[in-house]
Amino acid sequence: MNPSTAPQTAAQLASRFGLALQGDGHATVVGVSTLARARPDQLAFLANPRYRAQLAETAAGIVILRAQDAATYAGTALLADDPYSAFARIAALFDALDDVRPGIHPSAAIDASARIDPRAQIGPFTSVGPGSEIGADVIVGPGCAVGEDCVVGAGCRIGANVTLVKRVRLGKRVLIHPGAVLGADGFGLAMDGGRWIKVPQLGGVSVGDDCEIGANTTIDRGAMDDTVLEEDVRLDNQIQIGHNAYIGAHTAMAGCSAVAGSARIGRYCLIGGGAGVLGHLELCDRVVVTAMTLVTHSIREPGEYSSGTPLMDNHSWRKSAARFRQLDRLARRIGGPASAADDKDTE
Amino acid sequence: MNPSTAPQTAAQLASRFGLALQGDGHATVVGVSTLARARPDQLAFLANPRYRAQLAETAAGIVILRAQDAATYAGTALLADDPYSAFARIAALFDALDDVRPGIHPSAAIDASARIDPRAQIGPFTSVGPGSEIGADVIVGPGCAVGEDCVVGAGCRIGANVTLVKRVRLGKRVLIHPGAVLGADGFGLAMDGGRWIKVPQLGGVSVGDDCEIGANTTIDRGAMDDTVLEEDVRLDNQIQIGHNAYIGAHTAMAGCSAVAGSARIGRYCLIGGGAGVLGHLELCDRVVVTAMTLVTHSIREPGEYSSGTPLMDNHSWRKSAARFRQLDRLARRIGGPASAADDKDTE
Amino acid sequence: MNPSTAPQTAAQLASRFGLALQGDGHATVVGVSTLARARPDQLAFLANPRYRAQLAETAAGIVILRAQDAATYAGTALLADDPYSAFARIAALFDALDDVRPGIHPSAAIDASARIDPRAQIGPFTSVGPGSEIGADVIVGPGCAVGEDCVVGAGCRIGANVTLVKRVRLGKRVLIHPGAVLGADGFGLAMDGGRWIKVPQLGGVSVGDDCEIGANTTIDRGAMDDTVLEEDVRLDNQIQIGHNAYIGAHTAMAGCSAVAGSARIGRYCLIGGGAGVLGHLELCDRVVVTAMTLVTHSIREPGEYSSGTPLMDNHSWRKSAARFRQLDRLARRIGGPASAADDKDTE
Repeated sequence: MNPSTAPQTAAQLASRFGLALQGDGHATVVGVSTLARARPDQLAFLANPRYRAQLAETAAGIVILRAQDAATYAGTALLADDPYSAFARIAALFDALDDVRPGIHPSAAIDASARIDPRAQIGPFTSVGPGSEIGADVIVGPGCAVGEDCVVGAGCRIGANVTLVKRVRLGKRVLIHPGAVLGADGFGLAMDGGRWIKVPQLGGVSVGDDCEIGANTTIDRGAMDDTVLEEDVRLDNQIQIGHNAYIGAHTAMAGCSAVAGSARIGRYCLIGGGAGVLGHLELCDRVVVTAMTLVTHSIREPGEYSSGTPLMDNHSWRKSAARFRQLDRLARRIGGPASAADDKDTE
Repeated sequence: MNPSTAPQTAAQLASRFGLALQGDGHATVVGVSTLARARPDQLAFLANPRYRAQLAETAAGIVILRAQDAATYAGTALLADDPYSAFARIAALFDALDDVRPGIHPSAAIDASARIDPRAQIGPFTSVGPGSEIGADVIVGPGCAVGEDCVVGAGCRIGANVTLVKRVRLGKRVLIHPGAVLGADGFGLAMDGGRWIKVPQLGGVSVGDDCEIGANTTIDRGAMDDTVLEEDVRLDNQIQIGHNAYIGAHTAMAGCSAVAGSARIGRYCLIGGGAGVLGHLELCDRVVVTAMTLVTHSIREPGEYSSGTPLMDNHSWRKSAARFRQLDRLARRIGGPASAADDKDTE
Repeated sequence: MNPSTAPQTAAQLASRFGLALQGDGHATVVGVSTLARARPDQLAFLANPRYRAQLAETAAGIVILRAQDAATYAGTALLADDPYSAFARIAALFDALDDVRPGIHPSAAIDASARIDPRAQIGPFTSVGPGSEIGADVIVGPGCAVGEDCVVGAGCRIGANVTLVKRVRLGKRVLIHPGAVLGADGFGLAMDGGRWIKVPQLGGVSVGDDCEIGANTTIDRGAMDDTVLEEDVRLDNQIQIGHNAYIGAHTAMAGCSAVAGSARIGRYCLIGGGAGVLGHLELCDRVVVTAMTLVTHSIREPGEYSSGTPLMDNHSWRKSAARFRQLDRLARRIGGPASAADDKDTE
């Protein structure tokens, strides 16, 4: 029997997760849902004030919410300072990680010099190259290509069609979603007599424990040193990490963002969707970059940073955009600094 | 013999597609091309006025164009209000969908509990997981990984190296290009005591009939409810759709655009290349978002929306960009509203 | 023995690569590294002035640098006008391309009508479709899907999980990184009676000699003519090239940039990361587009082009962004041109 389907009472959950209980301790749930769609045997949560109006109408058997929201709620509630985090921990009861079924699929192509832990599971149509090592309690999905000299630490989960090219070292419990490519050549080129010559990429990729890497994300290997993700870095889908970038622990990046070569991102940073960080820059810890911002210089102070212009209807936007072209002329007319270059906060 | 190579006369095409004929009804074509490169046995079209000058010199045997453009054209023409649409329908005669060759490639790895319609074609090195179902007249290309509890409706075409992770349900005639990943975990995280904890993603992905999904596009599965594409949604390459996003019927999104989690896009919307829509927003029907625009608030009125600044030579741009930093100071100097926050159309 | 590990003396390198030697000609290296991390048996280089301070402390046995930087350097040096390019050529000695091990992996699925050169290497779980041709000294990695009517020229290297869909022709020595998709359908749609109809994509993809194509990059095949990359085009990861785009020789594009359909990019252009070029535009030779710029009109003059606004702290940015909305009103107040449309450099 799958323990994830064991019913849970409100009293059990309150005790297990250290939450205050309001209402009926015998209220029992078998799963989770949203406020709008939960059935009486499901648990929901209220974190975003945007959804507060749904509280009056929810059919959820148990709701996790903040104490101040609970005052007006007549149903059974679990009180949490951070309802989303409490919900995350409870929801995990109902969706455990897939169990490892140890063994190598008969179709897999394993190099004679590769070492596969007997407790690892290797899917069909997966190849493992010379000198690579797959740890205990690992699942490597179907269609993966693990190249040479790679290490996959204990407890990792590698989705389907993932490629680890060369010299990729994963810590423990790293989760990689399908289609990701780690360890491809960094984009290193030198112009020589009118033609590009390729700069060899002799480094690797080092990924710390508990990192998560989204679908179709790419992380290039370093030119000489490694490209590094410290522990607990969380990357969404379709992110690009250039060669020799260094991402500090607990940093999270949203979909389609990118960090160019040799940039160094601090710990606990949040990089918004579609944002970009140019090469060789440094961001200190706890920097927040809003969506689709381009970071063009190093950031030394924690805080939130942005670029871009606000959303406008196209007719109005065209007028503002045309004036943007004239900005320096307009500023001079009203006696702004004589030259933009005189302004000390100019890039 | 492949019917797509059967020659077509101008009269046959006029009759079959309900178009007015001008010129020689016996003019015969065996394929399509551009105005600039067509041979006398090929059909071309003129829709974009940018290419009108090519009309005088084209060697095409038949040209599809608007009545007003036909007046000055001496060759054989088919008249259409929308030449591009008429061309699309005619060109399809010359490039029929690949025929299904029913059967499962001997190398494929099909779980015992999966159901494969006898009229489906499953390519080499493709795996189908427990509980999944592949309908009639489906082609699943080589190297695909269909996970558990997925449904592929009748007539779908799945390109090479596509991954359907879990709980992905495709309607009929859905076309998925190579490398796409549907149903990977949504990016759900909660910060707990200085570390990220993963929020289980218990929903699925629901894709309506006649949708098209581009190469290397990613569509995450929902946290609790499904991520949804209604019918006839068209996604170009490298698009990212976050968990629980909802895309209305007949909406088309150009390459590299993205919709963050729980955003709701209306019907008949057009999202430009590289554009982004933040999470939890709503866009009504018939919204057009221009390329590389960031949508930061919900849109209630149909129309065209933009952000960004115009293209400039870098020298001029640097001057305008420096002034952008000073904008509030400059505006105050000339007596703009005392504070930006007083301006009612400010974000 | 792998020649790439043969030790090299400073005198040998000076002679082989035509560089002036300063210091001990017997200094010997077995590999390359960075100034900061090189051991005495490694070679490093100084190109970016940002790293000049590391020169005093480097343990590198040989350093490549410019003559003017060598004056104050006491160690063994090779003098080069372009140290990075010289380094690239020397580093290649230590990381030769993988040797081809001719033969077709027993698991590979090769169509009876495909032609595989006896000197090519085809990896496991790779399929090659009808009418396709793989040249001499080619390596096709594991999990690739080569469709129909494709040509892979001599000396190409195709990474893992790459898809060539249809009518893709690669020149010689093309390097394709894992997960790339070439030759998928272009995004061609016509609206017809409230539904999208698909425009057949009858062209192919033509890639010149010595091109490099990054991981998870997508290049669609043309609608009628081919999508074209001339020789020595270098594409980083996650780039999107629309149907019928044409990229001139020696152009390099950084990660996550995109070129929409039928755009024509000149030779020796540099397209920054995340930048976009709209469809049907033309860029002349030697255009530089900075990161995350949107190119909205054709460019006739070589030079550097940009759009966007500078990075700011979010509080200041909000004030400038609010003023951007008011720009036309503000400009009229100080007597700017009566209407933006009167300004001749407006888009």
